[in-house]
Amino acid sequence: MRKLIEFIPNFSVSEQKDEAVFNELVKTAESVPGCTLLDAESDGSHNRTVLTITGSPEAIEEVAFLLCKKAMETIDLRKHTGAHPRMGATDVMPFVPAQDVSLEECIELSKRVAERIWNQLRIPCFLYEDSCTSEERRNLANIRKGEFEGMSEKLQLPEWEPDYGEREPHPTAGVTAVGARMPLVAFNVNLDTDDIEIAKKIAKAIRGSSGGFKYCKAMGVMIAETGKAQVSMNMVNYEKTPLFYAYEMIRTLAASYGVNIIGSEIVGLTPAKALIDCASFYLRLRDFDCYKQVMEYHLGE
Amino acid sequence: MRKLIEFIPNFSVSEQKDEAVFNELVKTAESVPGCTLLDAESDGSHNRTVLTITGSPEAIEEVAFLLCKKAMETIDLRKHTGAHPRMGATDVMPFVPAQDVSLEECIELSKRVAERIWNQLRIPCFLYEDSCTSEERRNLANIRKGEFEGMSEKLQLPEWEPDYGEREPHPTAGVTAVGARMPLVAFNVNLDTDDIEIAKKIAKAIRGSSGGFKYCKAMGVMIAETGKAQVSMNMVNYEKTPLFYAYEMIRTLAASYGVNIIGSEIVGLTPAKALIDCASFYLRLRDFDCYKQVMEYHLGE
Repeated sequence: MRKLIEFIPNFSVSEQKDEAVFNELVKTAESVPGCTLLDAESDGSHNRTVLTITGSPEAIEEVAFLLCKKAMETIDLRKHTGAHPRMGATDVMPFVPAQDVSLEECIELSKRVAERIWNQLRIPCFLYEDSCTSEERRNLANIRKGEFEGMSEKLQLPEWEPDYGEREPHPTAGVTAVGARMPLVAFNVNLDTDDIEIAKKIAKAIRGSSGGFKYCKAMGVMIAETGKAQVSMNMVNYEKTPLFYAYEMIRTLAASYGVNIIGSEIVGLTPAKALIDCASFYLRLRDFDCYKQVMEYHLGE
Repeated sequence: MRKLIEFIPNFSVSEQKDEAVFNELVKTAESVPGCTLLDAESDGSHNRTVLTITGSPEAIEEVAFLLCKKAMETIDLRKHTGAHPRMGATDVMPFVPAQDVSLEECIELSKRVAERIWNQLRIPCFLYEDSCTSEERRNLANIRKGEFEGMSEKLQLPEWEPDYGEREPHPTAGVTAVGARMPLVAFNVNLDTDDIEIAKKIAKAIRGSSGGFKYCKAMGVMIAETGKAQVSMNMVNYEKTPLFYAYEMIRTLAASYGVNIIGSEIVGLTPAKALIDCASFYLRLRDFDCYKQVMEYHLGE
């Protein structure tokens, strides 16, 4: 099985506002053998570009550095305006295990990339998400607060010394957040009730922040189109908090209110394994080795 | 998403009895760009080699012909002995849809391959499995009956004219069966009883041949190690007869005998989709597009 990492760097530039720079970034993303550029999304009003790249750990490590270098050479944050908060030309670089790679390998890789960026480009780096060196730095919003314009002052604060680099942002490229995280699954469960309070109570019961499943974020919302309540979730580590934990707990709690589940939905992408683990639970599969027995994991070998 | 076909040709030769020929076949399998040789299994007493190859439809079509040609040039069935029944140097060539390819595309491909084998190699071909031109030819055992030694006589029978070629086997390479089929999932459900009759009754109720699910083959067996009865199944089209149909029906029937399911197992490989469809059923997923939303289907793009 091929080892694959998904890499989703965010840049403070857009195709709409600076097509030449956008094209340079795309060209760089496509220049490293072993990498595939899956998607390039640009938003003019946010003045931001998000690339989605998959590849071998070695190729991703190389393309991450080259993209950060290219962004430094072509983007001047002193001239940047846009609706999206930002602190760096390369604003944030998350590494996500996609196939036969552990979260730990992605964490190690993120540290090597951050170190190289400081050593060779002199852009200070913060480690965030599961690479963070303190809980305060796990959340990107904490690190980015103050943005490019306030970063010079912020780095003087005792608690905001960068993980790599000195207490002074790069003059044109600012600072960059680098880190590893598990793929996130956006999983919503629709209830057969118009009472949003039931969805809110269930969300509170199952989310980690209020005592529920550690890797589940949840809120209760109303869906205007159907007039029904929904438990809307982000499953941030499907291996440690599987989707069926959330589903079965919602089913049980909803039943205690006399409410049924209508159906559920996954928004956007999910790793196959997040669903295969559910099938394995419901079919009571024993001794099933997903990576050995699922055909698709061998197709690209 | 890349289109991928799995191709599992069987040859009447073994590494143990003729290493040079085995090596030639492996070399040929590796010679076509766009193909990957996943596995090469050889059995001396059966005197048989099974290759597992994945690749694009075009690459698989080419490698199928080249392998059949190489087998014709290097294997002489008049000298072949082995425990496994066989009728050709290349005995059987199944094409299986693996990713973003329909069964119909594999059927068309199998016909083009069979036609080319006859036209260029003068080996008569039968179409079998889902490529078959009559129900009698669906089952390989029917076609192969009589084996290499009896094939000359068999081809004279009115009902055994080859689908491609004349009524005379190739002198040294015999005849070949070519066809498309869905991937097969070997799925067993273990019952909490030592009464094999219950497993047999359930197997009879759920299998297509006796009125159950069309694409489910099932039998009741005893597992010596555990002393428990098992419903042992081959799911021959998981899209039309999903695994959860079988599981839920077994659960219901077993309950009527007062018996619980202990657990289930999948033997060997399964396509991810066979399990994702189960997760989708149990989680009541709505509007889920497996090929668009499952990350792995995009990794190799």
